[in-house]
Amino acid sequence: MTYCLVVTLKEGIVFASDSRTNAGFDKISTYSKMHTFGKDGDRQIVIMSAGNLATTQAVIARIKHDIEEDKSTHLFNVSKLINAADYLGDISLQNQTKHSNMAASDPDFKPEATFIIGGQIGTRNHHAYMVYPEGNHITTSPDTPYLQIGESKYGKPILDRILKKDSTLDEAAKCAMVSMDSTMRSNLTVGPPIEMITYQSNTLKLQHHLKFDQNHPYLRVLSKRWDQQLIKAFDKLPDINWGTAEPE
Amino acid sequence: MTYCLVVTLKEGIVFASDSRTNAGFDKISTYSKMHTFGKDGDRQIVIMSAGNLATTQAVIARIKHDIEEDKSTHLFNVSKLINAADYLGDISLQNQTKHSNMAASDPDFKPEATFIIGGQIGTRNHHAYMVYPEGNHITTSPDTPYLQIGESKYGKPILDRILKKDSTLDEAAKCAMVSMDSTMRSNLTVGPPIEMITYQSNTLKLQHHLKFDQNHPYLRVLSKRWDQQLIKAFDKLPDINWGTAEPE
Repeated sequence: MTYCLVVTLKEGIVFASDSRTNAGFDKISTYSKMHTFGKDGDRQIVIMSAGNLATTQAVIARIKHDIEEDKSTHLFNVSKLINAADYLGDISLQNQTKHSNMAASDPDFKPEATFIIGGQIGTRNHHAYMVYPEGNHITTSPDTPYLQIGESKYGKPILDRILKKDSTLDEAAKCAMVSMDSTMRSNLTVGPPIEMITYQSNTLKLQHHLKFDQNHPYLRVLSKRWDQQLIKAFDKLPDINWGTAEPE
Repeated sequence: MTYCLVVTLKEGIVFASDSRTNAGFDKISTYSKMHTFGKDGDRQIVIMSAGNLATTQAVIARIKHDIEEDKSTHLFNVSKLINAADYLGDISLQNQTKHSNMAASDPDFKPEATFIIGGQIGTRNHHAYMVYPEGNHITTSPDTPYLQIGESKYGKPILDRILKKDSTLDEAAKCAMVSMDSTMRSNLTVGPPIEMITYQSNTLKLQHHLKFDQNHPYLRVLSKRWDQQLIKAFDKLPDINWGTAEPE
């Protein structure tokens, strides 16, 4: 399983991803799911991936190939991020279609992959898109400034409560970490290292691109502290006053 | 969608369920998903249901019918709760099989239903089981004292953090409410009224059986207070110290 998350704020963008890949519970490996394509001063594009590992690796390889060969459309010559999302959707769909002849004979074969692509090109606004296996995409909104792919449910409640369009990059990064922590705790196939990128709007270079291993002191402290704080928060809630509810 | 939850504690059992049923987003109704079968002083059995509403209604009707007709096996003559779980699994499976001839011609037809059954019979220990659509079942453990059916992921992190085998009934009831609140906030097809039953071990009668409507002051206060407390808890977490993580 996978959990990746992007938050778009007035101030910039936060990307976070886990690194665990499993093809069955007895075949767990670690792969980075975060791929950066940037030219400082010109553009910064980050792609995160979930789903079939063969598809995602083929798509990333194809993106790199198209840049090297300077094809008519690639990530370093598109002028808008939405065009980059279209391009990513197209090559993902092509790759899945190519291999899905197999799918008819093997119902367990699922070539689907989902992507998040975000960043900034030149003087245009920074954006992020989630690209579906079908190749189409959605973006964030002021009310829902984040997008998730993979195992998204466990980590969603905290995002809904904390994130706002005008949260700072540091707040959003911390919130992404808590969301990641809740997910890892509930689904063991989502696991460290956690990769995180922060991008400050209009700088056209990545601010931070870091990796937090399982034993990283911050991850350990955050997890423990959040546990303690949640228990304290819970203790402050009022007990049910049984007398006030309607008997059934 | 549905969210039902049972917690088994040393002290007794807490049952909680939402009441929203939807057959498509434009056909939303309210049905109780909590069914009680009890003879004070002899036994208390509570059943909660998720899945196909026709299946769950047929199963509950059959359970009542078998009691009325005093069949060889019914909820008022089984001597162990595990036998009641077997019986529930059998009639659920029978009902699904009966209607699943249709399923071949209509791939959207899903007769599956999942149940939680819990309570106490005579001097035996209190228990709870989750009965799968296939008719088999699992129970709780000291490490995982709860079972969920329906939309379970959003409300799981708080259960993992708070519930312990020796939590009190009141703590567990409050925790179930918070779990329900997180789920309702993230999935609009889970909705009030919330029904809740508490059962104190060895009393052989229900302690509380109450219904909390959307506008019930406790639900409103809990939701608001939990929001505030979570934001406070989050504010007390340490910011990421970017300098300590490994650059990627």
